[in-house]
Amino acid sequence: MARERLIVIGGVAAGLSAASEARRRNPSLEIRVYEAGPDISYSACGLPYFVGGQVREAGSLRVHTPEFFRSERNIDVLTNHEAVELSAHRRCVTVLAPGGAAPDEVPYDHLVLSTGARPARPDLHGLDLGGVFHVHSLQSTLALKRHLDSGQARRAVIVGGGYIGLEMAEALKAAGLSVVLLDRSPRLFEAVDEELVEVIRQELVRGGVEVFTGAPVAALAGDAQGRVRRVHSEQGSFEADCVVLATGARPRTKLAEEAGLQLGAGGAVAVNEYMETSAAGVFAAGDCADTLNLVSGRRTYVPLGTTANKQGRVAGENAAGGRARFPGVVGTAVVKVFDLEVARTGLSRREAEECGYRTAEATIRAAARARYLGGRDILVKLVADRATGRLLGAQMVGPEGVAKRIDVLAAALHARMTAEQVYQLDLSYAPPFSAVWDPILIAARQLLHALKGR
Amino acid sequence: MARERLIVIGGVAAGLSAASEARRRNPSLEIRVYEAGPDISYSACGLPYFVGGQVREAGSLRVHTPEFFRSERNIDVLTNHEAVELSAHRRCVTVLAPGGAAPDEVPYDHLVLSTGARPARPDLHGLDLGGVFHVHSLQSTLALKRHLDSGQARRAVIVGGGYIGLEMAEALKAAGLSVVLLDRSPRLFEAVDEELVEVIRQELVRGGVEVFTGAPVAALAGDAQGRVRRVHSEQGSFEADCVVLATGARPRTKLAEEAGLQLGAGGAVAVNEYMETSAAGVFAAGDCADTLNLVSGRRTYVPLGTTANKQGRVAGENAAGGRARFPGVVGTAVVKVFDLEVARTGLSRREAEECGYRTAEATIRAAARARYLGGRDILVKLVADRATGRLLGAQMVGPEGVAKRIDVLAAALHARMTAEQVYQLDLSYAPPFSAVWDPILIAARQLLHALKGR
Repeated sequence: MARERLIVIGGVAAGLSAASEARRRNPSLEIRVYEAGPDISYSACGLPYFVGGQVREAGSLRVHTPEFFRSERNIDVLTNHEAVELSAHRRCVTVLAPGGAAPDEVPYDHLVLSTGARPARPDLHGLDLGGVFHVHSLQSTLALKRHLDSGQARRAVIVGGGYIGLEMAEALKAAGLSVVLLDRSPRLFEAVDEELVEVIRQELVRGGVEVFTGAPVAALAGDAQGRVRRVHSEQGSFEADCVVLATGARPRTKLAEEAGLQLGAGGAVAVNEYMETSAAGVFAAGDCADTLNLVSGRRTYVPLGTTANKQGRVAGENAAGGRARFPGVVGTAVVKVFDLEVARTGLSRREAEECGYRTAEATIRAAARARYLGGRDILVKLVADRATGRLLGAQMVGPEGVAKRIDVLAAALHARMTAEQVYQLDLSYAPPFSAVWDPILIAARQLLHALKGR
Repeated sequence: MARERLIVIGGVAAGLSAASEARRRNPSLEIRVYEAGPDISYSACGLPYFVGGQVREAGSLRVHTPEFFRSERNIDVLTNHEAVELSAHRRCVTVLAPGGAAPDEVPYDHLVLSTGARPARPDLHGLDLGGVFHVHSLQSTLALKRHLDSGQARRAVIVGGGYIGLEMAEALKAAGLSVVLLDRSPRLFEAVDEELVEVIRQELVRGGVEVFTGAPVAALAGDAQGRVRRVHSEQGSFEADCVVLATGARPRTKLAEEAGLQLGAGGAVAVNEYMETSAAGVFAAGDCADTLNLVSGRRTYVPLGTTANKQGRVAGENAAGGRARFPGVVGTAVVKVFDLEVARTGLSRREAEECGYRTAEATIRAAARARYLGGRDILVKLVADRATGRLLGAQMVGPEGVAKRIDVLAAALHARMTAEQVYQLDLSYAPPFSAVWDPILIAARQLLHALKGR
């Protein structure tokens, strides 16, 4: 009897987690990973820090090589191999090897789709000009870095004020460029509510970034050599010799869609908590798959590295005969913006209201550590369901003590705690690390008052 | 009709929280705070940082003055007023004012006992020698600081390797002394399990502290001027011109005990979740009161600043007619030891076993942040109940990212999460703040393996 074969399509994050987990569970399975691009197993989240120079060598972002997977885990990882067709019915996938070989039809017993996401391409004239980049992949980031290192880039325009836009603003300033950030929405960074956005905007300005909101880009204009020279937006026209598109990501679902797999939230491949798709034997994981928001109970599309790795493990274990679960996310995320930590979990007030909740909220400012040891203020916002007192979400921004503090509230959301239960949490205190009343507790108390208010 | 009167005995932490909360709830109550010592409202937890010089002025540790309470909150705070007798039956307390006035018998409607703790005094010859100190109160710490500032102190011996002993080791090194730390137990720092203690010991040694365990002190020897000169212990005899006793704290319960109030865990005043004592109208809060460990379900005595303030608020609100609850603690604590953060929550393995649990555990080492941004390793230990998979406790030690990370597990303990639920937590990730697999998740996965193991 031939060995069972697992095929994994996509080898950046989720796919390799899936392959590795399948191997742990089943030593005899044949496991083959096809990656369309030249790179596997690198930290996509680290790319802005390579652009900014904090990471000197792109190689530092690489985690493992194909040779590692072959020799250490008995997994075949084939780069520059594009899967061009999937027949879920016949359980086979058609793969194009590099060098113009004929398409190869490869049968599988189990398949994991981890095709990831692609950068959303705004509908703009001039996207193909020289000097226009995104930082979605290692290759595209290397191209940007070469442009910066050539010394030809002086003025950068970033299009988009989400996580990547904010990180790139800091990175491009660190690389010595003047930076204009254009966001099409009337305000920056939709992930948090207005009060916190104002703090972020001030930090960007302090860092030397010119920020324009309500500034959709109309066109990019180039010179005779095909190099970008200007960005035309509704808030004016800006000189630019470097344009970074940070306009979000879309799930890469062509293969799944053409094979008739059901799509879910955000157009991503629909999966259940076992990472099963609508097709037997086919799992999906990572930035191409949707997930459940455990706070709202709604399906959602949140392409993040942690989720990708977790979903990958579950898909891999189950593809190898297991029954692991990935219940979902609560929507935790954090980003560094110059000297500011910005974090969120659960639902913002706006998101909660969109989900139909009547909300109560509290926003407080309190010292992250004892002031007599130099502790500085952070802003904490909590949102609760007025009907039940249940915590729905939290947001924080400040110069210190934000990133892991948000995780306390993420745990509270997983446990469906009320504001009262959050207020009762026994949190650590020593003057170098906290104030005697942790900002979380101060905010929870304020939230209790707000809940009693009306 | 006369105004109702609330008397609060003790005005360092819990007592003032109680008085303030009572005032918020009832604007017309008469509120009087008697404090036996000269100081009120200061951060006792900040005292080691004053000794070490990170806090320059003792005044920085003072939070509020009696005048503040009088003018801003209409609360009378009387320092150097000692309550010497309590009649719970007749609802009155006898107070000694300073200056030799006759004892004053003051009737009350509601009473809050917040008499705090006193330093445990080991049974030792030589405790009254000059140069022997503890850092329990502001006054005792000021005396130590004057001794250090006099330039007469070169060699310090610290007796006790608990939280205060560790903090004082760092403080006295910062003050320029040679430091010997003696712990009577066969190992240092009972609050965490052995594996972590070894890391702490190494950090102390790296910081220049000589550490001796299994070293109970037999006697202190002085010179003709009554100044301490040597410390005799079972591990040898050490020159010393400065001895700091850090041998723990005992609840100050004389008043309560003589009044016939029931005592509880650790000899502290027994309270329920409303901070009610066994006597009608009498509440207790802070370092003189016991509390419930929510993980073990047992009463416990944990004199910590956060708990004191929380209990104070609940006692104050209820003394003013409310019905607030303080359910208990999970046993969270953190301490800084030179460049190391040490934290714990819940039960250590030893404590869990003492409570009758069959435990499973996992100890892992993982990067607190992305290594390519300089992230360093921390040690995470998790303990679970083998029968149910429920998390029972967590301990962490490392150079960064420990103090608030422990709070995630404190929240998990409050919610009685299983190892599986901890593994499913949606924790924040960005390279400057975490690795893609947070150390908590890596430890939880390892714990799951340990639970399945046998």
